[in-house]
Amino acid sequence: MSVFIDTVDYIHGRVRIIDQTLLPGKDIRLDLDCVEDVADAIRSLKVRGAPAIGIAAAYGVLLELENILAEGDAGGKGFIFDRATGFDPERVKGLDVDLCGARLIAAIEKLALTRPTAVNLFQALDIMRRAVESEERCPEVYCGRIAGDAFHIHEEEIEVERRIGLNGARLISDGMTILTHCNAGGLATAGLGTALSVIYSASDQGKKVKVFADETRPLLQGARLTAYELEKNGIDTTIICDSAAHSVIASGKVDIVITGADRIAANGDTANKIGTFGLASTCDRFDIPFLVAAPLSTFDMATRSGEEIVIEERSGTELTHFHGIRIVPEGVRTYNPAFDVTPSDLISGIITEKSVIRAPYGENIRLLFFSPGQ
Amino acid sequence: MSVFIDTVDYIHGRVRIIDQTLLPGKDIRLDLDCVEDVADAIRSLKVRGAPAIGIAAAYGVLLELENILAEGDAGGKGFIFDRATGFDPERVKGLDVDLCGARLIAAIEKLALTRPTAVNLFQALDIMRRAVESEERCPEVYCGRIAGDAFHIHEEEIEVERRIGLNGARLISDGMTILTHCNAGGLATAGLGTALSVIYSASDQGKKVKVFADETRPLLQGARLTAYELEKNGIDTTIICDSAAHSVIASGKVDIVITGADRIAANGDTANKIGTFGLASTCDRFDIPFLVAAPLSTFDMATRSGEEIVIEERSGTELTHFHGIRIVPEGVRTYNPAFDVTPSDLISGIITEKSVIRAPYGENIRLLFFSPGQ
Repeated sequence: MSVFIDTVDYIHGRVRIIDQTLLPGKDIRLDLDCVEDVADAIRSLKVRGAPAIGIAAAYGVLLELENILAEGDAGGKGFIFDRATGFDPERVKGLDVDLCGARLIAAIEKLALTRPTAVNLFQALDIMRRAVESEERCPEVYCGRIAGDAFHIHEEEIEVERRIGLNGARLISDGMTILTHCNAGGLATAGLGTALSVIYSASDQGKKVKVFADETRPLLQGARLTAYELEKNGIDTTIICDSAAHSVIASGKVDIVITGADRIAANGDTANKIGTFGLASTCDRFDIPFLVAAPLSTFDMATRSGEEIVIEERSGTELTHFHGIRIVPEGVRTYNPAFDVTPSDLISGIITEKSVIRAPYGENIRLLFFSPGQ
Repeated sequence: MSVFIDTVDYIHGRVRIIDQTLLPGKDIRLDLDCVEDVADAIRSLKVRGAPAIGIAAAYGVLLELENILAEGDAGGKGFIFDRATGFDPERVKGLDVDLCGARLIAAIEKLALTRPTAVNLFQALDIMRRAVESEERCPEVYCGRIAGDAFHIHEEEIEVERRIGLNGARLISDGMTILTHCNAGGLATAGLGTALSVIYSASDQGKKVKVFADETRPLLQGARLTAYELEKNGIDTTIICDSAAHSVIASGKVDIVITGADRIAANGDTANKIGTFGLASTCDRFDIPFLVAAPLSTFDMATRSGEEIVIEERSGTELTHFHGIRIVPEGVRTYNPAFDVTPSDLISGIITEKSVIRAPYGENIRLLFFSPGQ
């Protein structure tokens, strides 16, 4: 069975994350104890990947509630919330819900400013905002809903990813070689990942698969994180530089390409790690299936097409420096978009927890979201 | 006027190179004093770029001759050959041409084993081999031909690149944005480069151009070397990661893409730095001209198509380590092809010192090489 990676969790009143900037060299957990630290961890990619960012943000709101309670009567008695043990309603009784609500909204607004592209961040914060803004004035019920919603976002994600894996594994035959980009694995999420969940699931079913993983500049999520996960799971993995993917695909060495997604528009256009569009384009030229694996939470029905997706531009130091060593001469400009948009006509299918969506995307996505009985 | 870069030269009896592995951090010249050091410098990319490799190899043969002479009567009187001052025929009179020839052939064979893809290496060594194997037995004439041929390879390259720049600059209009990959500049050659010579020439003509330069993993020749050269020449340069080039092209920010070439087959298929094929493919999708700039010495008329070109696979440590820091977890495989092949149907034109070759390539290349009067 595949190895679960404890990317992000809420343990003993703290948001616990793996510091992904240090992987694979150092495998270190950080216990974040204030919302500023959670926001900073998201911004600096200590925690990254669209679903993991959503969970971390939800937990950031819960952490703010934890800290508000600790300042009052509940302080000094140790942690209040924990995903494994839940919480003791007695401990929250003294809470001034009105005062608390304003601080939690401030926390939500702080967290919303961290990264613009991943839609899961905003969806998770929307769920938390509805809980925070509820009419409920009984502290036990109020706190119970906030904690419950945060834990639910996390646990539902794990189940969703398991189903994505199973739905995607039907497309994988024994002996296939899969190419992936960036990290759409357990480290990007809280379960088995999205694109990598498909690979883990196929492997658990006894299918022997090989993986080409793009190193994924500038932050090398493929070389560092995907390689780390796949190796832990005993999957035959070969790292290539991003620009080699095109000739590797052209040479017939790849049967299928699967990536994750950071935001999917209502027409199926998909924002994902910079480089994804180029891969999809090359797959199209050689008739290699290009698939996206993503939970329904990655779909942004308010965004009609890829043109409306805001692409985060990150600091040029990601290109000019490596571990503090300057690569690019001083005075030279950089342009460092973190994502690109793959138009849906280059996508062979989108693997979700419900089904594999195929073209025509606009129609089929609408059906999945709005059909009766859903 | 554009700044000449002294990439490789023969000075005071030594092969002088810039150690390109240290740029842009350290700008250091190395005086190589034996053929083994020249071979090692080529293998380890201290000197790189198809034309520069050819020149360095030719000078490696001359250096072996220098050392043979230094072992005999000519020793102890300082250097014999120098590109600026030539040589004194009196100094080579005692040479045993037969014995010398065998050692020079051994040097040629050593140099031929350094890198398999760049055709200029083999063409330069073929010229040197013909000089070494000549019937001439007069030491002065024999040595004069070897030195003359080596210096001629170098000087002709400078003139050829000047002409490539002028031919290519006709395709560049004021205000254009050019994207380039790897380093096809003075550092890859011995003059102004190939793709970058076009840019320098356009700029010298007063055309304001902007350049997007791919960083070019794994060895970052774009980020380190192209940026260094362009910045020295005052060209507006922006470094992007390789995989960003596709969405930068898609977004309409690029008017033309120009790269160098390591080997061009008789049908126009072009081997160049890994990633070139993907760029050409994306240009094709968006109707952006994709041009190759290369001297006629880069054409290999004995190779019928790209399928016959041997692609050098380099060590995985180029991917797994950066400045000694491990990026990829232990036990994970790598695949590191240094080049890919762009089929000629994706190439809008090949800029040579004679003219810009257009499709149908097979026919037009043949005409250029074999037409009467050439």
